Amino acid sequence: MFDFTFHNPTKIIFGADKEALIGSELSGAGITRVLLVYGRNSVAGSGLLDRVIASLGKSNIACSQFGGVVSNPLLSHTREGVALAKRDKVEAILAVGGGSVLDEAKAIAVGALAEEDVWQFFTGKEVERALPIFTILTLAATGSEMNGNSVITNAETRQKYNISSPHAYPRVSILNPELTHSVPLDYTAYGAVDAIAHVCEGYFTKQPGTHLQDRLVEGIIKTVIETTELIMAEPAHAKARASFMWTATLALNGLTPAGIGAYSFPNHMIEHALSGIYNIPHGAGLSIVMPAWMKWYLPQNPGQFARFAREIFGLDSGEAGIAALEQWFVKINSPVRLAEVGIAAADIGTIAKNAEGLARQWGIGGIYPKATIAEILRLAV
Amino acid sequence: MFDFTFHNPTKIIFGADKEALIGSELSGAGITRVLLVYGRNSVAGSGLLDRVIASLGKSNIACSQFGGVVSNPLLSHTREGVALAKRDKVEAILAVGGGSVLDEAKAIAVGALAEEDVWQFFTGKEVERALPIFTILTLAATGSEMNGNSVITNAETRQKYNISSPHAYPRVSILNPELTHSVPLDYTAYGAVDAIAHVCEGYFTKQPGTHLQDRLVEGIIKTVIETTELIMAEPAHAKARASFMWTATLALNGLTPAGIGAYSFPNHMIEHALSGIYNIPHGAGLSIVMPAWMKWYLPQNPGQFARFAREIFGLDSGEAGIAALEQWFVKINSPVRLAEVGIAAADIGTIAKNAEGLARQWGIGGIYPKATIAEILRLAV
Repeated sequence: MFDFTFHNPTKIIFGADKEALIGSELSGAGITRVLLVYGRNSVAGSGLLDRVIASLGKSNIACSQFGGVVSNPLLSHTREGVALAKRDKVEAILAVGGGSVLDEAKAIAVGALAEEDVWQFFTGKEVERALPIFTILTLAATGSEMNGNSVITNAETRQKYNISSPHAYPRVSILNPELTHSVPLDYTAYGAVDAIAHVCEGYFTKQPGTHLQDRLVEGIIKTVIETTELIMAEPAHAKARASFMWTATLALNGLTPAGIGAYSFPNHMIEHALSGIYNIPHGAGLSIVMPAWMKWYLPQNPGQFARFAREIFGLDSGEAGIAALEQWFVKINSPVRLAEVGIAAADIGTIAKNAEGLARQWGIGGIYPKATIAEILRLAV
Repeated sequence: MFDFTFHNPTKIIFGADKEALIGSELSGAGITRVLLVYGRNSVAGSGLLDRVIASLGKSNIACSQFGGVVSNPLLSHTREGVALAKRDKVEAILAVGGGSVLDEAKAIAVGALAEEDVWQFFTGKEVERALPIFTILTLAATGSEMNGNSVITNAETRQKYNISSPHAYPRVSILNPELTHSVPLDYTAYGAVDAIAHVCEGYFTKQPGTHLQDRLVEGIIKTVIETTELIMAEPAHAKARASFMWTATLALNGLTPAGIGAYSFPNHMIEHALSGIYNIPHGAGLSIVMPAWMKWYLPQNPGQFARFAREIFGLDSGEAGIAALEQWFVKINSPVRLAEVGIAAADIGTIAKNAEGLARQWGIGGIYPKATIAEILRLAV
């Protein structure tokens, strides 16, 4: 165990139809005007947007609408949102959607109270304040509903950068698992990969000996695998969708790394370079990067890989555990080779250079120079 | 999975010497005058109290001292604390000690802002406000450092009752595991029993099928067992004390029951009657009650007891798992029979009647009439 501070003040309201409470939650916090941030078709088509607006109306909360958030949310669109939030003098940001919508909403919340351009906070400037953030989650994957992280892509520079700030924790996040019943199976699989990746980063790169945290991680991974398989067989499996949703939240809410000391995010570092250039889903990129990284990293932490193999798959070697995870990604139809998403081996040099830039920004450049990243990616050819 | 709300805003600061931060944490919250609540000799003798007062002084925080909290904290002493908090117009309560000190500090925080006598909040009146609560924990057991619970004993009526309120969550809790190195092994064992009991209540009395929460509970129990054995062999085992401390916090901070639906607290209900009458340590009472309750309850949930036996002890029957837990309590020198703490079988009727009163107050009287409680306690003779 190492020193840590844990402070996660987000209130989670979990259950069917709970989005109807958003108006009273906002008015209870003294909010009278929000910017409603959402994506493209699904939230409007499903009737969710109408239900949310009705709840706001009942509580006399004025609402400016800002749709059009895309997967891998863009800085250019975020800037438009910031301008709208400032113009309409909103008092809070309400995100309705998946992780991309939540991440962009957080960036808008930060930008709305800043004089500087919002990108400065993604390139080193400390976040000192943000508008209160409220969310209604429609896709389980990123954990953004209960953390202070936001990842935004600058399409001009091909940089996919993040902020992590106490000011970016949602005040309230509403998780209605029924809203996820219609998530397509490919995006469900990518969400499963993402949740597993979130807990694996610390599990494998920390020092050994923090068994409580290991057990929490193993419980999360086993539950993701179990519930994903139930959902693949029956997409509207209510119990599995619900359990999957809460598990994905716990996978990146600060619980599993509390006390483990220093650790790093090599898979995310490499993957952000992939999806920053090729605009593939984050989870699809991760299922390509993770087995490759694990094969490369295995000799640095053989004991933990042996433990992973035993606890997750009941297998007796680190190599077998990595192979089982890769096969499980194949089973749920998430890609495990670069060619499956149309990336040529010849592009590895470019990706590695981009990833090294990210590593520098995160302060872990020394660990993964571009030659190493290229070596890892060649294991995914 | 069932609907739930999870909201735990307590900030945990974990690590060596972190009590030195208490002054800056209080002043950062705008506090200028506190009531410092503590127990008897240990916090003064160890120099901790002086260090805390020095930290307050550095941040120009005035301090009224209120010592003398006892194990199974008393209503009469709580009332004195409320009077002192009102007289000195303190703006926050700072608890330095174990679960008993924290519980009484919470009760004082509630009473200090009320016109009514504080006992009314333990007998049904809703808590609507409390002074901000800050804690420095010296004994890992109750989880009070990260929840809204407080248990107080009315010595006149022999009632050990509790409040559970969002207003009673500490704002900040400082956990320095080094402060627990000198905890005697008997109280360490009682803390281990208490943490295991906290997670077992929901694990066994909920409906089946919430596997994530089962896994979180199992990870907590396995870690409590592992770290307690290390501590028994080496009382100042730094890693084990640290891991044990954080594990005990997670055992009752709302994490493990989130999503499990309805569950009950039969072991605590029965034990509170024991320690309310006989003033034995809560953990000692629990290690007597739990094996008896488990033997009695086994036929009502055989699947979960089989799971418990397999996951915790690698055994293949529910009976064997219960026996293994009872033997483990014996191994750590926590009592498992009433006679070990001087309670005669002839007293069971009185205890059962008292426990039924508690059950009525908690609204679960229908489940455990006094005849049933007596039947359970006879298994501990």
